[in-house]
Amino acid sequence: MKPSPNCLPELPALLAFGAHPDDIEFGCGGVIARATRSGCSAHFVVCSRGEAGSHGSPAQRTAEAEKSAALLGATVEFIELDGDAHLEARAAHAIKLAGILRRVRPDIALAPSLAGNQHPDHRRLGQLARDASRLARYAGVPELRASPPHAISQLLFYAVTPEAEPADLARVLIDVSPPEIVAAWTAAMEAHGSQTAARSYVELQLTRARLNGLRAGLGHAMALFPSDPCVHDSLAQLGRGARHF
Amino acid sequence: MKPSPNCLPELPALLAFGAHPDDIEFGCGGVIARATRSGCSAHFVVCSRGEAGSHGSPAQRTAEAEKSAALLGATVEFIELDGDAHLEARAAHAIKLAGILRRVRPDIALAPSLAGNQHPDHRRLGQLARDASRLARYAGVPELRASPPHAISQLLFYAVTPEAEPADLARVLIDVSPPEIVAAWTAAMEAHGSQTAARSYVELQLTRARLNGLRAGLGHAMALFPSDPCVHDSLAQLGRGARHF
Amino acid sequence: MKPSPNCLPELPALLAFGAHPDDIEFGCGGVIARATRSGCSAHFVVCSRGEAGSHGSPAQRTAEAEKSAALLGATVEFIELDGDAHLEARAAHAIKLAGILRRVRPDIALAPSLAGNQHPDHRRLGQLARDASRLARYAGVPELRASPPHAISQLLFYAVTPEAEPADLARVLIDVSPPEIVAAWTAAMEAHGSQTAARSYVELQLTRARLNGLRAGLGHAMALFPSDPCVHDSLAQLGRGARHF
Amino acid sequence: MKPSPNCLPELPALLAFGAHPDDIEFGCGGVIARATRSGCSAHFVVCSRGEAGSHGSPAQRTAEAEKSAALLGATVEFIELDGDAHLEARAAHAIKLAGILRRVRPDIALAPSLAGNQHPDHRRLGQLARDASRLARYAGVPELRASPPHAISQLLFYAVTPEAEPADLARVLIDVSPPEIVAAWTAAMEAHGSQTAARSYVELQLTRARLNGLRAGLGHAMALFPSDPCVHDSLAQLGRGARHF
Amino acid sequence: MKPSPNCLPELPALLAFGAHPDDIEFGCGGVIARATRSGCSAHFVVCSRGEAGSHGSPAQRTAEAEKSAALLGATVEFIELDGDAHLEARAAHAIKLAGILRRVRPDIALAPSLAGNQHPDHRRLGQLARDASRLARYAGVPELRASPPHAISQLLFYAVTPEAEPADLARVLIDVSPPEIVAAWTAAMEAHGSQTAARSYVELQLTRARLNGLRAGLGHAMALFPSDPCVHDSLAQLGRGARHF
Amino acid sequence: MKPSPNCLPELPALLAFGAHPDDIEFGCGGVIARATRSGCSAHFVVCSRGEAGSHGSPAQRTAEAEKSAALLGATVEFIELDGDAHLEARAAHAIKLAGILRRVRPDIALAPSLAGNQHPDHRRLGQLARDASRLARYAGVPELRASPPHAISQLLFYAVTPEAEPADLARVLIDVSPPEIVAAWTAAMEAHGSQTAARSYVELQLTRARLNGLRAGLGHAMALFPSDPCVHDSLAQLGRGARHF
Repeated sequence: MKPSPNCLPELPALLAFGAHPDDIEFGCGGVIARATRSGCSAHFVVCSRGEAGSHGSPAQRTAEAEKSAALLGATVEFIELDGDAHLEARAAHAIKLAGILRRVRPDIALAPSLAGNQHPDHRRLGQLARDASRLARYAGVPELRASPPHAISQLLFYAVTPEAEPADLARVLIDVSPPEIVAAWTAAMEAHGSQTAARSYVELQLTRARLNGLRAGLGHAMALFPSDPCVHDSLAQLGRGARHF
Repeated sequence: MKPSPNCLPELPALLAFGAHPDDIEFGCGGVIARATRSGCSAHFVVCSRGEAGSHGSPAQRTAEAEKSAALLGATVEFIELDGDAHLEARAAHAIKLAGILRRVRPDIALAPSLAGNQHPDHRRLGQLARDASRLARYAGVPELRASPPHAISQLLFYAVTPEAEPADLARVLIDVSPPEIVAAWTAAMEAHGSQTAARSYVELQLTRARLNGLRAGLGHAMALFPSDPCVHDSLAQLGRGARHF
Repeated sequence: MKPSPNCLPELPALLAFGAHPDDIEFGCGGVIARATRSGCSAHFVVCSRGEAGSHGSPAQRTAEAEKSAALLGATVEFIELDGDAHLEARAAHAIKLAGILRRVRPDIALAPSLAGNQHPDHRRLGQLARDASRLARYAGVPELRASPPHAISQLLFYAVTPEAEPADLARVLIDVSPPEIVAAWTAAMEAHGSQTAARSYVELQLTRARLNGLRAGLGHAMALFPSDPCVHDSLAQLGRGARHF
Repeated sequence: MKPSPNCLPELPALLAFGAHPDDIEFGCGGVIARATRSGCSAHFVVCSRGEAGSHGSPAQRTAEAEKSAALLGATVEFIELDGDAHLEARAAHAIKLAGILRRVRPDIALAPSLAGNQHPDHRRLGQLARDASRLARYAGVPELRASPPHAISQLLFYAVTPEAEPADLARVLIDVSPPEIVAAWTAAMEAHGSQTAARSYVELQLTRARLNGLRAGLGHAMALFPSDPCVHDSLAQLGRGARHF
Repeated sequence: MKPSPNCLPELPALLAFGAHPDDIEFGCGGVIARATRSGCSAHFVVCSRGEAGSHGSPAQRTAEAEKSAALLGATVEFIELDGDAHLEARAAHAIKLAGILRRVRPDIALAPSLAGNQHPDHRRLGQLARDASRLARYAGVPELRASPPHAISQLLFYAVTPEAEPADLARVLIDVSPPEIVAAWTAAMEAHGSQTAARSYVELQLTRARLNGLRAGLGHAMALFPSDPCVHDSLAQLGRGARHF
Repeated sequence: MKPSPNCLPELPALLAFGAHPDDIEFGCGGVIARATRSGCSAHFVVCSRGEAGSHGSPAQRTAEAEKSAALLGATVEFIELDGDAHLEARAAHAIKLAGILRRVRPDIALAPSLAGNQHPDHRRLGQLARDASRLARYAGVPELRASPPHAISQLLFYAVTPEAEPADLARVLIDVSPPEIVAAWTAAMEAHGSQTAARSYVELQLTRARLNGLRAGLGHAMALFPSDPCVHDSLAQLGRGARHF
């Protein structure tokens, strides 16, 4: 079942995995906003209620995530793995995520990067999502036989913090400059009020996006890290390069 | 002056630099063929007559390059730098190439990669082309004042041999599978008869492209290495990922 | 117990680990064929029956692996870990593999690479095999006390797909050009008929080997990735370099 | 002309390039000693008289180099490039070195590594030697037409200091443990008395070799860095791995 | 509770994690000795009794570790995770280590590096320690609520063997040249008599430290690998660079 | 001769090399401001008048640089190498810079990074400065005999743009948060009015510094890249780690 019925058929459907209720918004919220404004569907899969964080109750954080997803034009579901700060890279988890990929059948999956020096839940979810992307297209996994195999067209990693930007993958930049996109993204981040009261998370993300924008001659841009080389039909589809300064 | 008047205005114009008369064909000929077949203009700048090679006279190699460029739908010019096997990374050379960029005013420039373990002329030309891409947009360089600054939108490196594929840049893959593209590219490589008689250059390149194609679920694909991150307006423009096996 | 009694004493005995019934053949089958033809013994340890794959029943895949091993002159055994698509990096698994190393006592162990972007069973088996190679020589591990410690002389990684070639390890190339070697390897790959019907696996591997061969001035060559630096008594043993083009 | 007529025909002939009179001895002297003791010929090409160093006159340093080469069983010649501390990466220099490779016709060439953070003459000579190895086999370079093309079988980099060990190339270790080899190497280093009086160069090199030896379960070992992958006929030729601790 | 009451308040308190009873001493013992001699407190947390090693009973190894810690001026405690050669990267372990960080409240934590090619317990403990350093400052982890959050100021990795030196992190060098420091460190290593009888571990570590010392113009120096960039108030605090030869 | 007589003797003297009149200010101006405010002396060596840039006459840019240096508490001199956009990596240039190092005799030298993808003058000046740092301490270079050898204690690279941050060197962060430091740095950048009118250079640098600051829990911080490992007497001197989020 596609999560969003009003998605234009020729536009890619997105599925974003997040370890905690605010990871997707902080790591790639502007990209989501731009995609949904142009007609793509987007669905979030959040793997904890943030119950180990310093601030906010699980109920509060669930409500914040639901409000934030709505601001970004996305649907959201919560799943149980091992719990916040307890996630492990179990094969059963990858199979569970693969089952979700088969159900939602997105074109593009987004997941936290695998960089080592970040919250352990982030990098483990990234590994699980990468494994799940493979398992989703194998026909013989017993737990997955209820739904037909599905192959996504792209797995893109996002980085919740600067330290999470992977050194071994090249970045692409997505322009999120339109004022309504910056506004929607900012509102979605601020919807996580339990988190943004204590730390400068929103400023951190806007500063990162502004720096990417300044490099590329844009207002704001967000970096994503494709897991595999991008394939294009011709040079005309390649986009422009980021060099501006 | 644009080299090709029949280029569709919305399609990118290409300029490819080659150190020797056959480098462009072996390193990115299939990409050129695909681009020109879809309406892009392409111009080749060749920086020697191959006069230090083991086979072929300068006159013979010039004729081969001209025939090959025509098969790829490109124009070609020869310039004098230091000569085959004698190229050095002089600032004056970078300025000379910048002047060509200002004259031709391409959207995309292609140049040999900067990987160290290849023919020294290749990596030096790659460095010169990268420097030239910057200098072309500075207004104050005295030697360049005759023509207005020009900023290309992309600098893409190609690898003449597998060893020349740069370890520090990510690849994009361009689909060159259509039979007429493979045929045009193969004919362009074989037009360098003085070179292909002695070594398996054509088979090497087709094997590389077939391997990329097998990885990506295509017939043949060629790898290019963008100098800077690609910027996209949205995820919908990103192309698909190469993972197939 | 050595798996093969007719191994010449001065030639190295090989043990190859595979996650699925066809991994060894696709990843290093030509190397195995060349080694056994020159008198080395070879033993395969396969850690699943491929029961999660898209094609072929466990019984069918077991029979294919047995036929394929015989074509390569190797013996084969199957072990139970967590099952296909379910392998985890448990310490108990590494100890189990260490026990097999102590029983078979090979000189050289081969295992799938640790590159991240491949089937998760592959990289996890590579990690387990590397850990097992260490544990096999520690005297105090309780589960291993039944057999004396054993130190292999080399751990070599193979890459089942191009994406699995590790970026952080240098390659060595093994010449598999003799026609009878290519034929034996091809026959061993084709023995996995349940897999080769649906995808171009055999062509992929032969294309990879042909590309390595073209680089090195040979017919076909396969890349292996030593886990540790190679030690030589003198420069005379170093072999030649691969540069050909 | 081969520099040493009493070289056994089946053993590789070595040519080592050094920027200063003591670089070869400090960077790979033990390897040279081991090779010449086993019957290989060795020839040194030294590209300055060390005239910019803090200690020792050119005449003194020339005499030291000649004595040291003799202790290692090698012949030595001095060539003029730009002078000590003045070396530049000129194409003409690479062609000059290529001419020497054609005259001496070694199997193996040794040169200082290309690591950036070392004496600039070292890395530039390494680049020149790598380029020269290619140019030596091209038939058309005018300056080289007097002698037939020559292809070496291996280019190996040595590191004069720990900082010069290249991060992007894998090492091989050569066992230099036999006491007569350590003694010959030590004597050759100490023959450069003008240098060893002021600094702990000899201890530095012996400490490096002892550390490599401890890693590999040997007395002393020296690291070399092949420019290209090593090609072997079979796994039996691969040597053992270095893991010992 | 701080482990050592006589620590000067302005000096950093250290906590070192070790997988086996001798890892801390071999990997960073000289640094510990220098710190405690200058007034820092140091506490060791050892995660096994070395019961899987080739030599020494658990009781013997415990006694050796206690003697060694005393020689270094440190306190020591043993904790139970999965046992020697059985350690796994479980979230519960990271939380357990985080609880110790909250109890001891050190300024600096030291842990084995995450390099892949070493004893698996080492790299897994390094991962656990890095994760624990994050979890120690999150207020919501249920198992940790008994003690207030604690943020260390630095996580430093040490390398028990040369292979364990991480390729992706830069090193800092700590001068351990004073004779009394070398003596205390050597005595602490030799206190592990069950290990040093069979292998040249002490010589290995002293050789490593001497090589670092020779590079930096010191007697002996040990390398540590900060997990995160170091922050300084001004250039005056940066220390000098290591270049000496 | 030290450039600034009122430098406190125990504080390091700084010498910064810049290719163009504004490079030092944009790349490390905040660090300079902080150092001079605490009593260090600072001297700038600028290697062109910016005569190839798009904006500003040489006279104008010279005046801007002099005003800017004064705002940072530094002295400035201009030298002639090959001119803006014409710089080459000549040995004679490195020797010229070495002569300046011998005259000024700084403790710390700052130079643009060697990253490839930036203005060619920047990376070439970085190479020249690194080479000069070595040559300055060799006693035999004829051109340098007039002044005694000098060894700096640190060579630090700065990055004028984000693309110039070197991937192969680790960063240290210098806190430039005090309001008077940010103000002095901003004023120094804005003193280059010919450049800041056309592009967002000042915002780019402040955004970079704010992002570093947010990562480290500070207001603003600038990254520098030591050429060699830092050596410390003890862990107490190491500074804190940057991890904050």
